[in-house]
Amino acid sequence: MNLDMYRVQPGQPTSLSRWATDDDGGYDKKAARTLLPELQDQLARLQERLYAESKQALLIVLQARDAGGKDGTVKHVIGAFNPNGVDIANFKVPSTEERAHDFLWRIHARAPHLGMVGVFNRSHYEDVLVPRVHGQIDEQTSERRLQHIRAFEALLGDAGTRILKFYLHISPEEQKARLQARLEDPEKHWKFNPGDLEERALWDDYTAAYELTLSTSTEAAPWYVIPADRKWFRNLLISQIIIETLKQMNPQPPRVDFDPLSVRIE
Amino acid sequence: MNLDMYRVQPGQPTSLSRWATDDDGGYDKKAARTLLPELQDQLARLQERLYAESKQALLIVLQARDAGGKDGTVKHVIGAFNPNGVDIANFKVPSTEERAHDFLWRIHARAPHLGMVGVFNRSHYEDVLVPRVHGQIDEQTSERRLQHIRAFEALLGDAGTRILKFYLHISPEEQKARLQARLEDPEKHWKFNPGDLEERALWDDYTAAYELTLSTSTEAAPWYVIPADRKWFRNLLISQIIIETLKQMNPQPPRVDFDPLSVRIE
Repeated sequence: MNLDMYRVQPGQPTSLSRWATDDDGGYDKKAARTLLPELQDQLARLQERLYAESKQALLIVLQARDAGGKDGTVKHVIGAFNPNGVDIANFKVPSTEERAHDFLWRIHARAPHLGMVGVFNRSHYEDVLVPRVHGQIDEQTSERRLQHIRAFEALLGDAGTRILKFYLHISPEEQKARLQARLEDPEKHWKFNPGDLEERALWDDYTAAYELTLSTSTEAAPWYVIPADRKWFRNLLISQIIIETLKQMNPQPPRVDFDPLSVRIE
Repeated sequence: MNLDMYRVQPGQPTSLSRWATDDDGGYDKKAARTLLPELQDQLARLQERLYAESKQALLIVLQARDAGGKDGTVKHVIGAFNPNGVDIANFKVPSTEERAHDFLWRIHARAPHLGMVGVFNRSHYEDVLVPRVHGQIDEQTSERRLQHIRAFEALLGDAGTRILKFYLHISPEEQKARLQARLEDPEKHWKFNPGDLEERALWDDYTAAYELTLSTSTEAAPWYVIPADRKWFRNLLISQIIIETLKQMNPQPPRVDFDPLSVRIE
């Protein structure tokens, strides 16, 4: 699979319309059922090395519209890792204390420890997206925030953290179907938030705001646009991108400072 | 399976010799291979309800000797949960700042949020075990610490957190075999810490110290002694205990404050 197709090139404006939300990359669901477990094995093996080495970290940022598949991605892709090496931060509406600081304060506190895979389920990008769409910040302020984000991500990069940012790209029809499914299944009612419909009505404004955030794609902290109407393809694609990235990071188990052959256990 | 057999009765001294480290509960490895995936499904389903409800939390404390199987338990049992609903704290040697506070300060900070499954991979019990074995605290101080632990666990209990404490019970022979395996596989060298052999030499002192900590078993925060020479039995038994506990907690998806049938998605 040509993973570069899904990567947002640094330094140029991007339109989400470049990517089809129902792209299947030439796979079918049946093939995916065989392939995903193999990818999950690879993820687990690479992560064990990252953990053993403890000199680099991987930070995975998940952004999407409501019902876009963030939680499913955590379950099926992140779930492949040994939970010991994963640190997941779910950023919700900021608390009073969090609001009393700069918008990166609470984010920075959850930056992953070296050796870990950190996951941001929503992230600092919400602080551009939501206020931008609702007209609470002007263009200049959102540009300032994006600059702060670039500087912050560069700081993490210099300290050994690779960053992968995924926008889960669904169509309005797919969102409708998923929200409808939540309404129809009593076990899923709690996942439905009537406020989501107000955000849904602002679809095009969010599209513009997401396109703005994609401008923070860099070599060291790229954005990927993930066609996500098909959950199985979303899982395949994200798994493969993480695997390629971990391979590039090439974590090495640390050399031990004793001779394993000379140790005698009584 | 009679889970109560493995539960430490509150208010009476306990000898670890009561439990065989190689107990298989009448199961065999082949049956376990079919049964574990079923238990993992149940764990996942119950956890989703706990997360949806968000009025209770479950805290799982894992204690064991080196190579006792804490990490394997996290991988195979905790790995069954949706990672979004799990918060794992690995307590290592305390930092300078942590040492400058009472021993429960760093522990309290990682108490699970309501709705979550918290896992303590090592815990506040290390602050009794290690200094007790190495003679750094006297009997009176260790008894004071155990009292503080009882009070702390009661505090969490009153706020909706159920606590399950597992001691993974292995034989000295099994530990030797596992440490030896780490020496023989270059991919596992990093897991071998020569210092572990010094602790291994203090086997009986640790046994006595663990028996002391088991005295904190209560109805609301019981200790279970898990025969752990057979990894597959350890996974089965812990999974079943967690399932029974979650069933007792009986989490209910929250009632929604809207009528799902009247919602129209445009």
